[in-house]
Order: sequence, then C-alpha cells, then structure tokens
Amino acid sequence: MNQKNVSSTVIRRLPRYYRYLTSLKDLGISSISSKELAKRMNITASQVKQDFAAFGWHGLQGYGYDVSFLHTEIGRILGLDTVRNMIIIGAGSLGHALARHAEFEKKGFKIIGIFDTRSELVGQKVNDLEIMHFDNIEEFLAHNKVDIAALTVPASHAKGVVEYITKLGIKAIWNFVPMKLQTDEDVTIENIHLIDSLLVLGYKIKENANIKDD
Amino acid sequence: MNQKNVSSTVIRRLPRYYRYLTSLKDLGISSISSKELAKRMNITASQVKQDFAAFGWHGLQGYGYDVSFLHTEIGRILGLDTVRNMIIIGAGSLGHALARHAEFEKKGFKIIGIFDTRSELVGQKVNDLEIMHFDNIEEFLAHNKVDIAALTVPASHAKGVVEYITKLGIKAIWNFVPMKLQTDEDVTIENIHLIDSLLVLGYKIKENANIKDD
Repeated sequence: MNQKNVSSTVIRRLPRYYRYLTSLKDLGISSISSKELAKRMNITASQVKQDFAAFGWHGLQGYGYDVSFLHTEIGRILGLDTVRNMIIIGAGSLGHALARHAEFEKKGFKIIGIFDTRSELVGQKVNDLEIMHFDNIEEFLAHNKVDIAALTVPASHAKGVVEYITKLGIKAIWNFVPMKLQTDEDVTIENIHLIDSLLVLGYKIKENANIKDD
Repeated sequence: MNQKNVSSTVIRRLPRYYRYLTSLKDLGISSISSKELAKRMNITASQVKQDFAAFGWHGLQGYGYDVSFLHTEIGRILGLDTVRNMIIIGAGSLGHALARHAEFEKKGFKIIGIFDTRSELVGQKVNDLEIMHFDNIEEFLAHNKVDIAALTVPASHAKGVVEYITKLGIKAIWNFVPMKLQTDEDVTIENIHLIDSLLVLGYKIKENANIKDD
C-alpha cells in the first residue's frame, strides 16, 4: 500500500502509539482494544480504528489489536530498524544537549559529528566527539554518509548554513532555529520550535483551555 | 467570544502566524491576502479564512487582512503582553540550554530558578542563576510565584518530581521527558518529545513523504 497517502496527523501519532505499545509489551500485555488505546492517546476509539485502517490493520471483535504486531509494524514504518547518521551544527548548549541525549542512538540515530565556527569550542569533546570547525564540513561530508543535520545555530547564521549544507548534499534538516527555513523541494525539514510550544503553553494557562493533543 | 471552542490545531498555528506577521510588520507590509498567508503556512486560503473567522476576524475584498491588527490580536491571545515566571527542574545539558535560551525572556517567559539533586551542580551558575538543590524547591515556591515548571529530569525521576511539584501547587509543566505524565485534571502539560520529532523526520526521509505541516 502507498503510505504516502497517510495524513501527517496520523504519522505524527505513530511515535506516541509506539511508545505506548512498548510499555504494554514490557508489561506482558498481548492485546488492547481501540477504546483503551484511544483513552491513552486522548483521541476517540474510531480515530484509532481509522488510523490503523489506513495501514490495513484491523482489530478483532472481543480481542482488539495484537500488541506485538502493532509494535513491530509501527517500528518498521518509523524505520527503527535502520541506523541513521546525524551531525549537529552549532555546539552551543542546545547542540551539547542533543549530542548527550542517550535516547537518540537507542532509536537508531547515531551522532557522528558536531560542528561550530567558534575556535574556542573546536577541539573540545562532547561525549566521545571532538567539535570540528564548520570549515571542515565539506571534507567530512565527502568521507561520511550523513542522513540528518540537526541545526542549532543562531538565527542570523541559519540561512547561510542551510544554503551551504544543502549544496553539499544534506537532504534532511532537524531545525531548532525559530524560523522557517527556505530550501529546495527535495530537502526534508522537521522543526522543533521551542518558542511556539511555550506560547501554546502560555495560552493554555491563560484560557485554562483543555487542549489535550499530546 | 469563547476562545475555548477554538480547536487545538488552530491554536498551534497561532505562534507561526505571529512569527510570520512579525516579519511582515518589520518589512513595513500593512496588508496581506489569505492566499499569501496560506502559501507561507502550507495550508489552504480557506483554512486561513476559517482560522481567523474563529476569532471573528474577516479580510476585506481587494485588501486582505490588516497585518498590524492581526499581529496585535494574536500577540494578545498568546499572552505576549504577560510576564510568566518559569523554573527549570533538571540542570543537565538540556536544562542549561533552556536557561540560556535568550528568546524566552523576550517573549515574556522569565526563568527565575533552576534545580537539580546532584550536589556537584548545586551552586554552579547558569547565566545569572545559581543552581539550587531540589530539596529547597518547597521553600522557593513558598516565596516566589511560579507559572511554569520546565521538566528536564531523567525519565526515572519524572513521576516522583511531578507528584511532588504539583502537590506544591505547580499548575503548568513544560515536559521534555519522553513519557506521558500523569497529573490531576487541573495541571496543564505541554510536551516537547524530541524522539517523536526525530522519528517523524526518519519517516519522512524513508518515504520521501511530502509532509509539510510546519
């Protein structure tokens, strides 16, 4: 089947399903109803059914869904069986935090390089990686397969860095810079906008709004 | 009007509208059509119209929307005119990164305390803040109004910390721990799940899927 037709809302729910299914599996639970899954996901049972039907999965009357099956399938769809090489551009506190995040490698995202332009940072170690000068990134990319570049540079540098690394062949950017990146159509971008999230939290507090979408 | 009826999807788009409107304002642009806004937001013009109609705003034929008006109104809805006090629990790399994020204070989120249980960190300075021992949080909360607690502790500590701080009156949590927090109904939670975002990026690469939702 063609997963490209599955909506982004459903795709964004997959990591959460996966997390929950992992806990269920660890607890030795073998089946789960759409109703129970729905409760945990803060969506309706019929949304759960729809989400899974998009992949051709259907529950059994009186049994529900097979936990192990869903866990394996969703893991496969999310590419958890694949190792991806990631570099971090910007070795400030956020770059350090990403480099030290132990969970990434467990999920198959291996950090193989970290770059900065600040000479006082170059040569310092973060975990086992020595921070490299950004001037060396072309040579690095020539000798290493890099799937993802995490971008944690100041906003003022973002445009130049993105133009440069996409010319060097980077096709996927995990963007922490609070701005919309302009790239060619064939470059995939995933944004973490911390400020946006904080503003939504501020809104929820102010309105005492019951927004439960994650 | 009752903003509580506005959907979470629309609310989550507001920070992006705001960011874009700020750029337009800085460029001296006074009006914008739903079509142009839609292009920038990767949604349709009719979605833009619907989003704004939910707040009672309508564009004018041949003129579009007034940039300055939208900018002010969305800023107000997001509470950008309010100062909120935030503490950070967990002074690891991610806690440091949040404490050093200059944009938060510009948007009205003021970091007034940072806590950890590790004695080797207590007393160290992050920007102008001295890391405090988590044992002192009760006293701190008794003397300081805290609107938000950012949670950057290890997953194994999260449950205990959340139970404790919500008992002490914390009503809003900005959660960076990759798990679903269980709290009373009156506690507002906003999650940043880095792993989920990375998994979605992995999916996009694998499927070469054109998911453009932010």
